[in-house]
Amino acid sequence: MDTVPHRELGLGGLFLEDLAVGMSAVVARTITEADIVMFCGVSGDTNPVHINEDYASATPFKGRIAHGMLTAGLISAVLGTRLPGPGAIYLSQNLKFKAPVRIGDTVLARATVTDIVAEKKRVTLHTACYVGDTMVVDGEAVVMVPRRPNASAV
Amino acid sequence: MDTVPHRELGLGGLFLEDLAVGMSAVVARTITEADIVMFCGVSGDTNPVHINEDYASATPFKGRIAHGMLTAGLISAVLGTRLPGPGAIYLSQNLKFKAPVRIGDTVLARATVTDIVAEKKRVTLHTACYVGDTMVVDGEAVVMVPRRPNASAV
Repeated sequence: MDTVPHRELGLGGLFLEDLAVGMSAVVARTITEADIVMFCGVSGDTNPVHINEDYASATPFKGRIAHGMLTAGLISAVLGTRLPGPGAIYLSQNLKFKAPVRIGDTVLARATVTDIVAEKKRVTLHTACYVGDTMVVDGEAVVMVPRRPNASAV
Repeated sequence: MDTVPHRELGLGGLFLEDLAVGMSAVVARTITEADIVMFCGVSGDTNPVHINEDYASATPFKGRIAHGMLTAGLISAVLGTRLPGPGAIYLSQNLKFKAPVRIGDTVLARATVTDIVAEKKRVTLHTACYVGDTMVVDGEAVVMVPRRPNASAV
C-alpha cells in the first residue's frame, strides 16, 4: 500500500532507505548579471565588488564577482531538488570560499553522500562547487532525511 | 595623506586597524514571498517546501518556509556592507539552521568580531540570525581584511 502522496504528485525526494554512501548529484548554471542583481535584492548585500565594475576592477579580483552565498545557493538546489530532494531538513552547511566566480562562469555544484547515521536519520554530504576544473566552494552539509513510510512494517 | 579613494567615494569598508573583538553590526529585513520566489530563481532551489503551500502545509513546518541560504544571505549583507564592509574577502562560513523562517518573519542578522589574527589579516566573527528572540541560524565567518594603506609608515 502506497501512502506517500507526495511521490504520486512528483514532489517527493529520496528516503533514508534510498541513500548510500557514494551517491552523488549535480546542478549547474551560468551565473549572470541578473542573478547578481537579484541576489543583491533578496540579501541586501550591495557590496560594490558585486555590482560596481569601476570599484571591482581596482580590487585583487580585477572585476565584479558573484556573492559567495549566491554560489552556495546551488548547493541548496542540489540538496533541495535532487539529493535527497524534498522532505529532507537542512541542519547545517559549512562553506569555504576558495576562488572567485565571475559573471558568465558556469558553476557546477555536486553533493556526495559521505556518511549515514540511520538511527538519527542524519546524512552527511560533501558539497563542492566548480568552475571548470577549479573548486570555488568546498564544504559539508548535514541533513535529516525521512524514513520511507511503513518501512518498519516491512 | 589620504590614498584611499574608495573611502572618498563612500565605498570603503573598515580596515584591520579599525576592528576590535566585541564590535558588532546588524541588518534586518522582512522575508517576503517575493524574496523566496527570487531566491528560487537565482539558486534553482525550487523545493516545494518553499513555494507550494499545499505541499508545505503537510510537512512538519506546517507551511512554506524560506530557504536557509536565503536567510544566510543576510549574514553576507552584514559582512559585505557593514562589518567589515567592502574590501574584506570572505574565506569561510559555517551555518547551523536551527529553526524555520516563514513568510512575513523579520530576520535580524548580527555579526560580532570574536578573534583577530593581525599577522594573517584574518578576522573571525560570530554570525547569527534571529526572528524575535529565536535564533534561526547560528554560525561563524572568517574574512581577510585589508590593512589601512600607509599604516606601516605611521
